[in-house]
Formats: sequence, C-alpha cells, structure tokens
Amino acid sequence: MGGNRIVVYKEPGVVAVEDHDMPKLEVPADVASAMGMSREAPHAVILKCVSTNICGSDQHMVRGRTTAPPGQTLGHEITGEVVEKGSDVQFLQIGDIVTVPFNIACGRCRNCRAGDTGVCLNVNPGRAGSAYGYVDMGGWEGGQADFVMVPFADFNLLRFPDRDAALAKIRDLTMLSDIFPTGYHGAYTAGVTTGSTVYVAGAGPVGLAAAYSAQLLGAAVVIVGDLNAERLAQARSFGCETVDVGQDATLEDQVAQILDTNEVDCAVDAVGFEASGHGGAEERPAQVLNDIMTITRAAGRLGIPGLYVTGDPGASDPDAKEGTLKVRLGLGWAKSHSLTTGQCPVLKYNRGLMMSILHDKAHIADAVNATVIGLEDAPRGYQEFDRGAARKYVLDPHGMVPAA
Amino acid sequence: MGGNRIVVYKEPGVVAVEDHDMPKLEVPADVASAMGMSREAPHAVILKCVSTNICGSDQHMVRGRTTAPPGQTLGHEITGEVVEKGSDVQFLQIGDIVTVPFNIACGRCRNCRAGDTGVCLNVNPGRAGSAYGYVDMGGWEGGQADFVMVPFADFNLLRFPDRDAALAKIRDLTMLSDIFPTGYHGAYTAGVTTGSTVYVAGAGPVGLAAAYSAQLLGAAVVIVGDLNAERLAQARSFGCETVDVGQDATLEDQVAQILDTNEVDCAVDAVGFEASGHGGAEERPAQVLNDIMTITRAAGRLGIPGLYVTGDPGASDPDAKEGTLKVRLGLGWAKSHSLTTGQCPVLKYNRGLMMSILHDKAHIADAVNATVIGLEDAPRGYQEFDRGAARKYVLDPHGMVPAA
Amino acid sequence: MGGNRIVVYKEPGVVAVEDHDMPKLEVPADVASAMGMSREAPHAVILKCVSTNICGSDQHMVRGRTTAPPGQTLGHEITGEVVEKGSDVQFLQIGDIVTVPFNIACGRCRNCRAGDTGVCLNVNPGRAGSAYGYVDMGGWEGGQADFVMVPFADFNLLRFPDRDAALAKIRDLTMLSDIFPTGYHGAYTAGVTTGSTVYVAGAGPVGLAAAYSAQLLGAAVVIVGDLNAERLAQARSFGCETVDVGQDATLEDQVAQILDTNEVDCAVDAVGFEASGHGGAEERPAQVLNDIMTITRAAGRLGIPGLYVTGDPGASDPDAKEGTLKVRLGLGWAKSHSLTTGQCPVLKYNRGLMMSILHDKAHIADAVNATVIGLEDAPRGYQEFDRGAARKYVLDPHGMVPAA
Amino acid sequence: MGGNRIVVYKEPGVVAVEDHDMPKLEVPADVASAMGMSREAPHAVILKCVSTNICGSDQHMVRGRTTAPPGQTLGHEITGEVVEKGSDVQFLQIGDIVTVPFNIACGRCRNCRAGDTGVCLNVNPGRAGSAYGYVDMGGWEGGQADFVMVPFADFNLLRFPDRDAALAKIRDLTMLSDIFPTGYHGAYTAGVTTGSTVYVAGAGPVGLAAAYSAQLLGAAVVIVGDLNAERLAQARSFGCETVDVGQDATLEDQVAQILDTNEVDCAVDAVGFEASGHGGAEERPAQVLNDIMTITRAAGRLGIPGLYVTGDPGASDPDAKEGTLKVRLGLGWAKSHSLTTGQCPVLKYNRGLMMSILHDKAHIADAVNATVIGLEDAPRGYQEFDRGAARKYVLDPHGMVPAA
Repeated sequence: MGGNRIVVYKEPGVVAVEDHDMPKLEVPADVASAMGMSREAPHAVILKCVSTNICGSDQHMVRGRTTAPPGQTLGHEITGEVVEKGSDVQFLQIGDIVTVPFNIACGRCRNCRAGDTGVCLNVNPGRAGSAYGYVDMGGWEGGQADFVMVPFADFNLLRFPDRDAALAKIRDLTMLSDIFPTGYHGAYTAGVTTGSTVYVAGAGPVGLAAAYSAQLLGAAVVIVGDLNAERLAQARSFGCETVDVGQDATLEDQVAQILDTNEVDCAVDAVGFEASGHGGAEERPAQVLNDIMTITRAAGRLGIPGLYVTGDPGASDPDAKEGTLKVRLGLGWAKSHSLTTGQCPVLKYNRGLMMSILHDKAHIADAVNATVIGLEDAPRGYQEFDRGAARKYVLDPHGMVPAA
Repeated sequence: MGGNRIVVYKEPGVVAVEDHDMPKLEVPADVASAMGMSREAPHAVILKCVSTNICGSDQHMVRGRTTAPPGQTLGHEITGEVVEKGSDVQFLQIGDIVTVPFNIACGRCRNCRAGDTGVCLNVNPGRAGSAYGYVDMGGWEGGQADFVMVPFADFNLLRFPDRDAALAKIRDLTMLSDIFPTGYHGAYTAGVTTGSTVYVAGAGPVGLAAAYSAQLLGAAVVIVGDLNAERLAQARSFGCETVDVGQDATLEDQVAQILDTNEVDCAVDAVGFEASGHGGAEERPAQVLNDIMTITRAAGRLGIPGLYVTGDPGASDPDAKEGTLKVRLGLGWAKSHSLTTGQCPVLKYNRGLMMSILHDKAHIADAVNATVIGLEDAPRGYQEFDRGAARKYVLDPHGMVPAA
Repeated sequence: MGGNRIVVYKEPGVVAVEDHDMPKLEVPADVASAMGMSREAPHAVILKCVSTNICGSDQHMVRGRTTAPPGQTLGHEITGEVVEKGSDVQFLQIGDIVTVPFNIACGRCRNCRAGDTGVCLNVNPGRAGSAYGYVDMGGWEGGQADFVMVPFADFNLLRFPDRDAALAKIRDLTMLSDIFPTGYHGAYTAGVTTGSTVYVAGAGPVGLAAAYSAQLLGAAVVIVGDLNAERLAQARSFGCETVDVGQDATLEDQVAQILDTNEVDCAVDAVGFEASGHGGAEERPAQVLNDIMTITRAAGRLGIPGLYVTGDPGASDPDAKEGTLKVRLGLGWAKSHSLTTGQCPVLKYNRGLMMSILHDKAHIADAVNATVIGLEDAPRGYQEFDRGAARKYVLDPHGMVPAA
Repeated sequence: MGGNRIVVYKEPGVVAVEDHDMPKLEVPADVASAMGMSREAPHAVILKCVSTNICGSDQHMVRGRTTAPPGQTLGHEITGEVVEKGSDVQFLQIGDIVTVPFNIACGRCRNCRAGDTGVCLNVNPGRAGSAYGYVDMGGWEGGQADFVMVPFADFNLLRFPDRDAALAKIRDLTMLSDIFPTGYHGAYTAGVTTGSTVYVAGAGPVGLAAAYSAQLLGAAVVIVGDLNAERLAQARSFGCETVDVGQDATLEDQVAQILDTNEVDCAVDAVGFEASGHGGAEERPAQVLNDIMTITRAAGRLGIPGLYVTGDPGASDPDAKEGTLKVRLGLGWAKSHSLTTGQCPVLKYNRGLMMSILHDKAHIADAVNATVIGLEDAPRGYQEFDRGAARKYVLDPHGMVPAA
C-alpha cells in the first residue's frame, strides 16, 4: 500500500512527510453519514499534485494554536493534474491541469448556488464551510502530497485552457488556490476601486496578495503595515508604500506622512487573530481590527480575510480563547463602517485572476516571492516561514514546476 | 426676544421647555469658522415645526450617558412648514410641508455626493456627520421646538407633494425624519428581501420600525426580541413573532420553536450600546451584537442601526467607556458575516417610504404606537418613554396634528 | 412500453396527449455528444409530475410561430415527486416534493457558478440556455406529462421542506417553476423597491405575476396595461391600477390620470415579440419596448422578461423574422435607461418566493387565477388560453392537486 | 463690453471664435422661469478656462446633424480657475483649480441626490439632463471660451488639491470633464473587471478612453474596432488589440483570431448614432449596437455611452430621424444581455480618476493623443478632428497649459 507522500502535523513546531495510502474516490465517512451522502464519490477526481503551497493558516495548526491532533494531514493550496475521475465527472478530462479552491464546496446547496462557497452546507458536519487538510473541517485529506482527492470536481475545479501555457506559469497560477483570491477578496470587499487609497495590515503572503490585488483594482496608493522589515521590503518591491507599526510614530501619523491625510479610503486586515500589539511583544488579537477602524475614513469599508477563530486554546486571555475580542466598535459605528469577514469564496474570483495571469497582466508570484521547494523539504519550509521569511513556499511533489 | 419654545436637557433625568430666541438663517459660529463657511446661510430655511418626535438616542443624553451639558437643546425628528427661506433656496416655497432628515448634510462634499449623508464632512468640526440638538455635533439647535433652522434646505428637505394629504397622514409621515428610515436601513443592510427570516433585537421604536420595514421588504417571518413584555405585545400587534430574551430558554431555542431551525437569514441590532444581559439586571454592551452573530446563518448580513458610541462616561467597564466592546468576532468570521454600522443616511430611503405612506401601503404610526402630545408635555413624554412605554411620542407644538 | 402520457404539438393550433415511453436517467443524445457528457445521467432523477402548467411561451410554438416540428413535446413548468434517482444524486430522497426551474442548468459551468442559470453553457448544443419541451433547446423531453426526467437534480431542484404543507399549497407553489420567478425577475431587474411606481405591460400570467411581485417588492402603485378587458379585471382583483392600451387616450395620459405625472419609476415588458399595436389589429413587435421607454422616468430601469426571439418565421416584417425590431433607442438613451433582458434564472428567486408562499405572505395562485384541469384536458386549456382567458392553466396528471 | 472669446457654431462645417460679454452669476432666463429658480445665482462661480476640449458630440452640431442654430456657443469639457463666486459658494476659494463635469446638475433634485447627475431635473426645461454649450439643453453658455459660468458650483466642481501639481498634469486632468469618465462609465457599466475580455466599438477619443479605462479596471484583453487605421494605431500604442471592421473578415472571426473564441465578456459602444456600416460607405445607425450584441457572451453586459438622439434631422432613414433604430433585440434577449445607456454621470467617477492621474497611475492624455492648441485655433481643431485625426484637441485660452 502507500504510494502517497503527505505532510503531517506531528507536534507543536513539527511536521513530517509520511507515506499514506493513495486517495480514493470516497468522501470521509463522517461527512457522508452526517450529510446523508454516499461514501462513494462519482463526482470526485484524483489529482496528481503539480504544486501545493504552505499557508499562514497551516501555521496556526503547526504552532499548536488549534485542536489539531498529531497526524493531522496538511495542505489546502493545490494545483493538480486529473489522473482519475468518477462516473459523474462530465466536464473534465484525464490530463487536465486544474486549480483547486481551498474551500470544499458541494455546488448544490443554498450557499453554493448563491456563490457563497466558503460556507457550503454539505461538506462539514461541524459548521458551514470546509477545507482540505484542516482541523475540525470534516476530515478531508490534505493536499501537501503527491496525490489528493477532490469531490464535486466539475463544480470545484477551474481548468486551465492550455496545458503547456499553464505549466509555464505555474508559479503564478498556484496562487489561485487561496492567497491570490483571498487577498483580492479582502481588497474587493473593502471597496478598493480606481483611485482608492488603501491600507493593508500585514505583509505576509495574504497581505502582499491583498496589496497586489488593490493595485490590480486600480488603487492610487497602497500602504502596507507590518513589524517585519523583510516583508515590508517585499511590499515596496512592487510599488507599495510601507509603515512599520513597531515604530513610535502612530499609524495615523505615518499614514499622514504618505497621504497628507490620516485616513485611507479602504482597509484590509490580512493578519487575523494572532495579531501583535504595535510593540510586537505581546499578542493583542483585536489590534489590527482597531487599527483599520482608526485609519479608515467615514463611509469606508473594511475587508477582513485574516482568520479569526471560535476557539484558540493558545490565547492568553480567556475571552480570546473563545474568539471574543475587544473591538472599538463605537469608533467604527461613528464612521458608518461596513465590515466583510470570513473565508474567501475562491470560485468568485479565480477565473478572472487566471485570465490576468495568462494574459500577462498579473505577476503574483514575484509579488509574494514564490519559492519552490520539494515536497520532502516541507519541514524546512514551515520553519523558515514561521520565522518570518518574506517568502511564499510552493511544494513541488513531482518536479513539474519549471525553474523560475 | 424669545418666541421659540424648545426642549432643553437640564440634568440627568430632567428636561424642560424653555423660551429661546427665534432661529435665524445662520449656521453655528463654530461650524462656520471650522469649515470655512459663511455664518449667514442663504441656503437655509426656518421651519415651523408641525411635529417633532422624542427619540431613543435623545434618552442617552437625558440619562446622563453622554457629555451633554445642561442647556443642551434637543430634537432631531422634525417635520415642518417652510416659513422663511434664504436667497439660495431655489426649489422650496413658503408654505411647503417638508420632512427633515435627522442627519444634517451639506449636499456638496464627497460623502453627500455619494449618498452617505450620515457622515457629511462639512457640518461638524469634531467628526463626520451631525444632527440637530445633539451633543458634540457642532451645536445645531434642536427641533423639539416651535421653530427650527435647517441648513442646505434644498438638499436636505423632502417636500410632501400635497399639503392637505400630508397633514392628514402626519402621524405616519413624522416617522420619516428618523426611525422609519433608520429601521428600514437596518433591515435593508441586513439583506432582508422576499422570503427572508429575520431577527430584530429590540422592540423600542427603532426595533418596531425595523420589524415593520422587514415586512415591507418581503420577509416571510419577522421575530422581535426584547425584555419588555409591553413592547413585545406591540410587535405582535402587526404580525411579528416575538422572543422574550429574559427567559431561561436560549435565544437559539426560542427561534427554533418558531422556525424549525435555530438560525435566521438576517438580523438587525436595534438596541445599541445600552444593551442589557439576557437577565436584564446588568448592562452588557456587546450582548446584542453577539446574539445576532449567534442567530444569523452563515453568509448572512447584520444591520446595526443601534447606536454605539466612542465615549460612554456612564459605562461601568473602562473598555466600554471608550466604546470598546467584547465582540465574538471569531464566531461572525466563521460564518462569513457582513456588518453594516452607523447612522442611517435618511435621504436614501425617505422618498420611497413617503410614497408608501401616501399610497396607503405603510402604516408605521400604528406599528410604533405613535402618541401625540403637546410640546409642553415633553417632560412627561421623556419620563414615560424612559420607563419603557411601548409608545413613540410625537410632540405637536402648534396643534397641527389631526386627531388619530 | 409506453406508460407516460405527454402533451405534444401536432400542427398550428393543435396539441394532443400521447403515450410515450417512460423517461430514463439519460440526457438527450445530441446534448451528450455535443457537450462531451455521458449519455447515462447519474445526476438525474425521474419525477412524477404533481402539477405542470401551460405557459405563454408554449403558445408561440402551438401558434406555429416557431420552427417546432410536429411531435415536439411540451411543458417546462413542473412540480414533481422524486420517484427514481441516479447514483450521484446526494441530497434528494425518493418521495421529496420539488419544484423544477424551467431553465435546465448543469450547475458546473461558468454561468451556472455565477447564478446565470438561464444561460447554462452545457445543456444546449445550439446556444446558451435550455428548457424542457421546447424547440431548438437540445431535445429535452417536455413535462406536461405523467413523468419527466430532470438532469443535475441536486443543483436544479428546490425541495419543499414538508410534503403535506407543500401539497396543501400546490396551486401556489406550482407557479415557482416559471411565471412567479419570471414576473419577479422583471420587477426586480426594473428596480422596483419600496415606494416605486410601476408600469407592467401585459396582463397575461407573467404580467400578473410581475404586477404581484412588484407589490411584494413594495411598490406604491402598480399599473397594468393590456388590450384584454378580462385580464385587466383580473389585475384589478388584487389591487392594481389598469390601463386599456386600446383606448384613444395615450398611455402617458392614462398614467397621468392615475399618478399626476406621466412617468413611472420602473417598467416591465411582460409581452415580448408578439406585441400588438395599440389598436390591437396588427402586430408591432417593438410597441411594448417603445411604450416602456416612453413611460419610464429618466434614470429608470426596464425589466424585459417578455420573450424576444432570433427567428420568427411567422412575422410579417422581414426584419422581425430575424428578431430585428424598430426600437426608439434614442429616447431610452436620452433618459439614461438601463435594460435587463432574457430568461429569468429561476434559482435566484424560487427559494425566497417559496418561503413567502409557505408563510402565507404570497398568494400568487389567486393573482393569476390558477385553474386546475386534468392532463387529458390540456388541448382545451391551450385553446382557452389562446383565446385570452384570464386564467393560468395547471395540469394535474395524477389527481394530486387538492381542490381550491 | 465683450472680453470673452468663445467658439460659436456658424453653419454646417464652420465654427468661429467670437467676442461675447463676460459671463455673469446668472442662470439662463428660460431655465430660471421654467424651473422656478431665481435668475441671480448665488450658487455659481465664474471660471477662467484653463483648458477646454473639443468633443465628438460637438461635432454632431457642427456637422449640421442637430437643430443647433447659427450662433450656438460650444464647449462642455472645461477645466478652470475660480475667479468669482456667489454668496452661497461655501467650499471653494478664488484661485482654486477645478474640473467641471459636462453635465450641469443642481445637486438638489431626486436624481442628483441619487447620483444620477446626467439626468438632473432642474436645469433643462426640455427634458432631464443638460450640458454647457449644447443645443436644446436650456441655453447654458459654452465653455470653449476665456471664461464660463458654472452654477451650483459647490456641488458640481471637483477641486484639485494642489494648484501646481494640477497645472503640471493639466493635459491629463482636462480629460476628467468628459471623455475619461465617459469612457470609464462605458467600461464600468459593461461590467469590466479583473480578467475580462472587452470589445470597444470606436477608436475616437471616447473609445480610446473606454479602452484605457478597461485596462485600469483590470481587463485581460481589450480589443478596439474602427474603420480608421490611424485611430486603430493609436489604440495599439497603449496595448490594445485592434480590429478593422472594414475588412472582409467578420467581426466574430477577427475576435476569434485574437481570443480563440468569438465572444468577449463585455462590450462598449463608443460610437453612437452616426455609426457606419462595416463597409464604411453608408450610415447604419444600429450597426454598432448589433455588433456588440453579436460579439458579447451570454450573460454579458453592454455599456452604451455613445450618443443616441431623439431627433436626427440629417438621417437618411425616416425612422432614424426620430431615433428609432433597427436593433437585433431578439439576439440580445437570447443572450440575457443587460444594457446601460445614457450620459455618463461624471461626478460618480471623476474623483477616483483624478486620484489615479495625480498618483501617476493613469496617463490618459497619451492614450487619447492630447493635442494642445490655442483657443483661436479651434476652427482648425474642429476640421482636423472631423477628418478623423487620431487626436484629442485641447484648447488653451490663456496659455496656462505647460508644454508636454
């Protein structure tokens, strides 16, 4: 048996590459029984993973900030080649190269019909929405692996029109599975449009993708804030302004230096619940939320793709342990702010972003500093990323990613 | 001198009707100097107040929960007759009966041009947005009075097409100045549409107006929650379901009794920062926010017209004193909720609601139990309202409101 | 063999009920080969038809105004009970009562993912979009029958939550398959909202459904125009104003009599290409389009659910034969009109409308004068409908529709 | 007297620069009396014209295709310096450099409040909407002049934040008065977004601005079609693909050569009623409308900023004389197309586009080939433009435009 290498969480700070059985055209038993589905999945495909990225939200598990048990498989940012398909996969062919939205969606429930694929009602017994290789999401196997099973494949998968063109741009296209749409969703729901001034909190990969997306959406000025100098430099590399939130000067003053006004039109929270205070020493989970309310003009909108959780066993504060944060809602209310939270519904955006990449309008790999390593090097990738490397690690299980 | 009776805040719990000078076609000196406007206001009119309502947000001042000084004039829910107009009032005539949006707006700034009249940039030196007769809003005189000055009148005022028809329906039309649009804004921004199930937190006048508006917007079921039995009975009087949040049963269980599911499609917070815990004994300013996140389905939207403030000197909790609340944002994020906060921009809605009233499609006065009293009876109205009467008090300074 | 009675077009003016083979879980051969699908349809169900309505667009075929050949099966307004299902139908059970959107959709293409199910890319070799029992739509068998096959059933079908409650309201719920959402789409895309004044051209079933929907959406005044006095009386029965467009008085003058202004906020074309001139004698296919541009205010929107075709062999005018109409576009442009055309994407609306029916907020059957007859009486229904009866004919193949 | 040079239409094909009286703070007498306004205009300013462009819609008058009488003053694309202001101009100062939307708007009517400034109800006795220097628009004096009066100045004018920065970029900023927002409106209402494929019909200045705007909005591919080789070359100069619609190959085939599919996502009509057939010899006023329906995918949207008129005395066809065109509406309907027509409401867009220019994100002057000439050279500019020069002529009355 075996035949499928896969990245597995072992203990806080430790991942390993293990050998698992090949995936089958089956949904997890718990999902099937809870949702009344058949275990067999004629709607599913098996993908050979062409590329599969390490995500900041994987880090929450690996840092021990979740209830993920040892043995949890990892990986939800997958691009693959169809190598097997079920009897009800009608519109995909063996050999197609496809991008996989990280949100697993049935394509048949009320929410999926409305495009809210981030909160599909049929794929997670615990709540709305699911993802591959994630704790408390129904037990779908992770995709930092040689092979992975994708259910409801005709609905979920976006096919690249041309195999060779796709492989040639795979370093960009691999970002379609999560961070490019997620960053774009942040900027889009913040109302970024032609001529906007934008503040993006966080210069990790999602923050960089949000900043890059804000540029695509026509922003006049994009300002990225972080504590990490290397990541801020990365943001400047593609034309962003930056703010070091660890400095003595307030965020407002630093923004005023750039814009001649201490408010922006739109703001994105690309940090989430593991936010630090401005000094950086201690966690202050509502810091970024309060920052973006402070810095955004009246009538502005806030895009909040950064992850907030309902249970954070690692939080110091008992409120934060259950996802309750001290939010300056009075301030936001006085400014008539609107807030959009939650997982990005990738299918809303990935086709357009794919077109931008294929027609040479978007160069997301460079913006996030895509760094390709072997699947076997995943443990090193996780470590470097955790230390704050200004890189987006892309795993290449089969050596299919061409040199940059 | 004198000639203008006006309701004035004296001390916590006490208002009085005093005699002030007649209003002039002038903007407040502070506003003029801070904003670079002329003191003289050729854009303004003087209105004879036909009706002028007591609002729950007036109560915050009268309870001493704000920094309003003794002498603060009150009243921002005004319907009036044009009795004098400046030289640049082009489209209103002496004798026109008009409704006044509570938000003062210039009609000339970026926000007003975009319809965001609740956060006009030119009428309040302290922040965006203003209102008549309110603390920290630039010093515009209140309209619980015989006469009131309205600036930028061509922009702000909505004229009723027919004087007699208007006076005949003045008990309904008087709600256009604030609570009808405010409740509608809550329901509208919560995404209420044909067939929605809706939870409205709070059965005060705004909550009732939100519930009634949800019906106008086509809701299949509207559930109103409160601790006050009389107000819940009022909600039932026009076809709402109700939930007593003081009961032992959880909100979710009570909703499930009504709907066969423990979630609604849309929810409205019509309470704001003076929320109580479910027992009712103590204030828990984030209680309602957390309730509506709990009770709303994934992908749902939350309308938050209930007032949240940046400074609440009367709060017990030091965080709450500055408007920082313990919000279960992790829960809302997991459900991909969207939130709309802030003052209702009345001009977006008042024309359509006026048409519904004039064509006998909306009977808001009955829904909120409009109760007409003399201007001199304002102190009694404030007291009864503060004790939780299920009534909306309408002051009638000139005896122009016909008997119901 | 046989076992499935089905309504069939024989020649202009004539339909018959014939005995066909029972439907199978198979897609039409032409569709399968053109689209690369498997002939077998694990995604499909067989429905026992609980109710199935005669539609005005069926009439175009029966009048000989299309290229429908003799033998064309009819019927796309279907409500049914699941009696057989394929191996990939995951979320429906045998015995479920469901409404079938008339638009056949795969749920897996770009358009379906975006909610544009009226123009699915995978179900019709000739163009985007398809329907049951319609000419040039790929050959899907009609549903004016005892049984019908529905493909992509998990996606297409909306299940009623309770079987008994559904059967009790089946006269209303049967309208969810087409005319209620279609009328609603017309009103919705015309921008009807709280307080709107609305003109609906046409008092056939779709026009009546549009008028009723405009009321649900909150219209202050709904005016319906037609030449047929009986249908206008039906419109008045639920509170509409009416205009007889055959009168000497212009449409504008008649509207002005009702509204004190000769323009409405929003207008719906519920007539389509078989429009008559105002005298009624001759067809003038652009008459209604030009009327709604004339009667709608500047900045208004026009909803055009009435059917326009690319080929009309029965037209007198060579331009009209290919769907080219003389439109007063200069007038619409001067008014900055926006126009929404095309098939209603039923899935966008049917769930909300179902909720309104089940919670007793919408009584569409009475509005359109639902008239239940046996399947065997279909020929009579077609004839009476063609003569302008102010009725919506509902066929009841299995005697499952309770008496009104 | 005199003192104000102004461009005037003399006879078909002929304009002249004449000396008129200086403008006053007064609205036209006809407008004042019809609308009930005061003749004196405390809301108005006098601008010294910094730059003022020749527009394609001026050409309709100059070609004799309208009822414009000899003596009609011209010019609605104005950028100016405030040199005089009325007593109710509160937020502008003498010396401010401002851009003037070509649509005159009161800022106080229902349409202006809703942002529909292209169809203001108070500035034109004949219909909704007006412009400077245009026939049948109420008689507002043109701005191809040394000085011009602008009413409702606080509302209409957009102030540039910095005088020097504005003058340095005046060749770009001058496009904010009309063609940049108009082209943007076309692309925006056609639904252009990240990754779209777009067809723009017409490579005149509005078409080029639409194409450039489509790029700003994130289009993956922009294809421009025209008969004029020089203009097509101009489109290619900033990265567009082009199609010569005079070729034998159909539009669909030419598009398929570029995109591998014969349909685009979105299309813009930047031609209007003076469209030619594909051969170019004869006018076919519906040609472009029918082209964009043919070339746009199902569910696509069509932006129609190109001018269509209600009266065209120069048309060969009696239908076209009254603005009735032979539109293939059946085709558009089959594709569920949506259409947006009408004047661009400039105020919706000019602020964002200004920010893009000032922050070096938009270089519209180069895209449209801005060509600065003296006011006295206007007759030459009109002639060259009429002959199809791939240039946008900018008049510079006071020598304030710096050399490129």
